[in-house]
Amino acid sequence: MRVVRGADGPAGGDGVGAPAGRASVDSIRTVEWQDGVVVMIDQRRLPLEEVYLHCRTWQEVADAICTMAIRGAPALGVAAAMGMALAARTALGAGDAAGFRAAVQDASKGLFETRPTAYNLPWALKEMERIWSRDDLCPAEVVAQMEARAVQIYEDDLASCRAIGEYGAGLIQGESPVVLTHCNAGALATAGYGTALGVIRSAYARNPRLHVFADETRPLLQGARLTAWELTREGIPVDLITDNMAGYFMRQGLVTHVVVGADRITANGDVANKIGTYTVSVLAREHGVPFYVAAPFSTVDRSLADGSAIPIEERAASEVTGFGGVRWAPAGVSVRNPAFDVTPARNVAAIVTDRGVAFPPYEESLKRLEES
Amino acid sequence: MRVVRGADGPAGGDGVGAPAGRASVDSIRTVEWQDGVVVMIDQRRLPLEEVYLHCRTWQEVADAICTMAIRGAPALGVAAAMGMALAARTALGAGDAAGFRAAVQDASKGLFETRPTAYNLPWALKEMERIWSRDDLCPAEVVAQMEARAVQIYEDDLASCRAIGEYGAGLIQGESPVVLTHCNAGALATAGYGTALGVIRSAYARNPRLHVFADETRPLLQGARLTAWELTREGIPVDLITDNMAGYFMRQGLVTHVVVGADRITANGDVANKIGTYTVSVLAREHGVPFYVAAPFSTVDRSLADGSAIPIEERAASEVTGFGGVRWAPAGVSVRNPAFDVTPARNVAAIVTDRGVAFPPYEESLKRLEES
Repeated sequence: MRVVRGADGPAGGDGVGAPAGRASVDSIRTVEWQDGVVVMIDQRRLPLEEVYLHCRTWQEVADAICTMAIRGAPALGVAAAMGMALAARTALGAGDAAGFRAAVQDASKGLFETRPTAYNLPWALKEMERIWSRDDLCPAEVVAQMEARAVQIYEDDLASCRAIGEYGAGLIQGESPVVLTHCNAGALATAGYGTALGVIRSAYARNPRLHVFADETRPLLQGARLTAWELTREGIPVDLITDNMAGYFMRQGLVTHVVVGADRITANGDVANKIGTYTVSVLAREHGVPFYVAAPFSTVDRSLADGSAIPIEERAASEVTGFGGVRWAPAGVSVRNPAFDVTPARNVAAIVTDRGVAFPPYEESLKRLEES
Repeated sequence: MRVVRGADGPAGGDGVGAPAGRASVDSIRTVEWQDGVVVMIDQRRLPLEEVYLHCRTWQEVADAICTMAIRGAPALGVAAAMGMALAARTALGAGDAAGFRAAVQDASKGLFETRPTAYNLPWALKEMERIWSRDDLCPAEVVAQMEARAVQIYEDDLASCRAIGEYGAGLIQGESPVVLTHCNAGALATAGYGTALGVIRSAYARNPRLHVFADETRPLLQGARLTAWELTREGIPVDLITDNMAGYFMRQGLVTHVVVGADRITANGDVANKIGTYTVSVLAREHGVPFYVAAPFSTVDRSLADGSAIPIEERAASEVTGFGGVRWAPAGVSVRNPAFDVTPARNVAAIVTDRGVAFPPYEESLKRLEES
């Protein structure tokens, strides 16, 4: 199930080399449909190893989601869609049309229960349900359409990220912008290119004086492992910092913009995202730094009025008491580990989507974008 | 130079046991003068191992300070004083009185240069200089007086922490207080008992419904390793969280007070403390949570008008790119690693010292305490 290659890949470099050694974002292959196999890079092992998982069943996809081999709201949507396509293939052997649909429904339920916060995951499952719930299609037709839709969701996400990048780059003004980001909302969190990092990539293409601060993002260190890896391999200047340093640099006036991704955005513009995002938003407001959220429109859940109803996943204590096989906390210590928090709309200067940029008040601007 | 014993010590327990298994704070031996040897627990190895360093020269003490085998502003003051007492002993072999004083002066300079931010360290060196700069004492008299003064600084610090605890406990009101602390301002950061943890210990003695949130405090994890260890071994209820979770819990109204230590306090009440303290202060103000600083008066540097002149140490990149022999950041990534930040006086609700509690405006209240 695993293929390993050198940590920097064929087009690699170690991020300190000359431009000739730089890799391109297009060489990051987060998740792909390869003729009945879902191939994904195992993000738990980055940046030290580039290992690819080959999932042949929806259960393997669900396991990869639960264990965070793949993460990032848009990537979870793509993976869930592809997992459903795998489920439909397998279900062809489940007897008659009723048995087929029962098996597919089980998979949908199983994938839904993997992780609760990111909205793109249930969104993608609903997109697939529109196909498998149709009585007028025979199982073979359902399989073909689900595969095609999964690939389309992947391709749409790629295009969305490029659009987000272009819309967002227009917000990153100034001679020498310094953009702080939290967690990883990059190529690895999407089909490719990224949301927050899509904005940073597009802004950097326009202004190579742009500089990035990457919060390491405890406990799972997606900033230190994934964002730092994505940016250094492309030669985009980045300083890695611990989460608790962001305020220090903002107070010195060294951060001009904040851009983060989102796991779910409610009708009023509240934003669930990786734990720590809320703190960054408070710091940004305190220092007059614009705080932008970048996400495809499929992250917007207009069925929820505000962020208070977003389910927040609490994960295992072992994520906090150590990392990578090293334990540093004393035996018996109690731990809290919420994986997300909610940033209130009042702290958000703009939401950059693939349909355009929404400004406050978000009830109206998000509604307008939905209808566009 | 090293003595190892079981991680929980003779009176130990793993922090989950019944009260009978609890250790007392008095069994934590941070730094002690033992007849010409400075014995200190190696804090780099806690909580996994309890290893004691035996320093017989001031250079060994300086090395322990630089490498953070010992840390915490008051503990650095005690260690520096004891290091000077070692230096004076050794200098007795340096020839005449002039050679003796030159050797002692070298040690003072060497110890001064170890770490720049904590004020207690230069304060203790100045206290010792008052002895060795006296022309009316012969070298043997200087040695005897420096040893006595070093032990007195140790004992004064213990008494200071107890006083800080009592003064501070009066501020921790409410039926079920929940106190958030950052880094370790505990017995391990002082001669014993602690400053911020002294307040927590005294408040817990008055109200056993008190609960603590301990920020893990990246990069060196003093919260996860040291604060969690101190509190669990005494059975004081504590939840360990990553630094970026504090805002999440404050927004839910689950934190009623913040208490932190200090490395230097300027005349106007600005407070240098472990990186991340400033962010906690911003969050506390945003959520209407009182933010208290606890420190002995020897941390107050009234020669500086405000925090802008406090030197901020920047430490090695390797502290950020991994921990405990595990590296997680990609090769070649650039890192920033300021070890401290400055919290402006406007975010500080009170400064708890061994001379009493100072409230704003601090220019006046600190001056009054100094003169008291």
